[in-house]
Amino acid sequence: MSISKNELRQVRSLAQKKFRDETGLFVVEGEKMVSEALASGFEVVSVYRRDEIGEEAMARLSQLSSPSPALAVVRQPAPAAFRPVKGLYLALDGIRDPGNLGTILRVADWFGIDAVIASPDTVELYNPKVVQATMGAIFRVPFHRLEIPAFCRSVLAGGGHVYGTFLNGENLYSKTLDCGSAAPSVIVIGNESKGISPETAACVSDRLFIPPYPADDPGSESLNAAIATAVTVAEFRRRSL
Amino acid sequence: MSISKNELRQVRSLAQKKFRDETGLFVVEGEKMVSEALASGFEVVSVYRRDEIGEEAMARLSQLSSPSPALAVVRQPAPAAFRPVKGLYLALDGIRDPGNLGTILRVADWFGIDAVIASPDTVELYNPKVVQATMGAIFRVPFHRLEIPAFCRSVLAGGGHVYGTFLNGENLYSKTLDCGSAAPSVIVIGNESKGISPETAACVSDRLFIPPYPADDPGSESLNAAIATAVTVAEFRRRSL
Repeated sequence: MSISKNELRQVRSLAQKKFRDETGLFVVEGEKMVSEALASGFEVVSVYRRDEIGEEAMARLSQLSSPSPALAVVRQPAPAAFRPVKGLYLALDGIRDPGNLGTILRVADWFGIDAVIASPDTVELYNPKVVQATMGAIFRVPFHRLEIPAFCRSVLAGGGHVYGTFLNGENLYSKTLDCGSAAPSVIVIGNESKGISPETAACVSDRLFIPPYPADDPGSESLNAAIATAVTVAEFRRRSL
Repeated sequence: MSISKNELRQVRSLAQKKFRDETGLFVVEGEKMVSEALASGFEVVSVYRRDEIGEEAMARLSQLSSPSPALAVVRQPAPAAFRPVKGLYLALDGIRDPGNLGTILRVADWFGIDAVIASPDTVELYNPKVVQATMGAIFRVPFHRLEIPAFCRSVLAGGGHVYGTFLNGENLYSKTLDCGSAAPSVIVIGNESKGISPETAACVSDRLFIPPYPADDPGSESLNAAIATAVTVAEFRRRSL
């Protein structure tokens, strides 16, 4: 198998958001990611292996500093309708760091989050750094892009809960936590530096706080967004064990 | 205030580990980091502000893509003797990603970890990406570089516990957890891809596992190293609330 100059150029162009948007495609790299793509319900458009196209072509295709032995071009699934009736969700209110978004997807996958909802200003899901940081969770966790305040208002209207962490929230460990058995429960995650936006904060029904240790001396002013997500979600799930 | 070409060159050279090692200095950037450095016990060698040296000089000094308004050159503290008699510690067994190390320091700071011990093959603490990811925790969390197996053996010999997370470990939430009230307790964090090394694993007295949800279906094969650290440490601290 060889690869044409044209094909090479097309795959390389997917490093840029503009071309990902235009084509509706994205790239995954690494043996594990490629096999997860193939085993998923996603449409795999093409697969390139170093053994087949050669080291030089692979180095040109790859967006990684050390090219992996396999790379696939995958079609982005079409946006699907989303009207949850119950379950536990994450709502990302302006996550900007690709590594954080990828890590949050991986956390969502581990802890069985039903879907992740991201605000329009959250980093693009198909950014290569996000894709790689998900370690395959991108193929398993449903992802929707919606206006977070409107989504939260619809959850509240349906009798659900909207949780968020705030420095003046209540101790996570002493609050009643609803995992969404009867109506949807949403955990809102704020932007890395600004936290939850005022418009979204107005829709939060239950304000939580992850207690530091000792309780009166946090040291740091805050936790990283993905870390706060994990500690909060782990506690929701611990309750149901 | 102006800045000489020589001074500019010296500060810029600190982007490289070689020069950080030679000089024993490192760089912190951002108003918040600089004020935390000044308020800490660390020796601040020099401070540069955009208002004083001008935008162009600042852009040349900075290691960030968008130069911040302030930058400080700080002296690395001399290695100190370390013989814990009690308390809760993290031992990093080959953490390679700078963002992970910085985030782990921030977690350690929030949850009052007494010190972080890093293996010789853990990424350098004064790497600019680590420093910035700590968000100031670098000034508050004691850090030691030691051989992890030897350290763990000394903890065990003194009657302490060595915890580690493994896929075949026991449920974190049903284990007795000792925060080190009488002898040191150590939580070992493994390498991002290989986990805890066999030599260190042989010293782990208590094997833990963070249960996924649902319990029999993790989705992902694992959690990110900093995420697993946070969920584990949060549970140790929750018990003492």
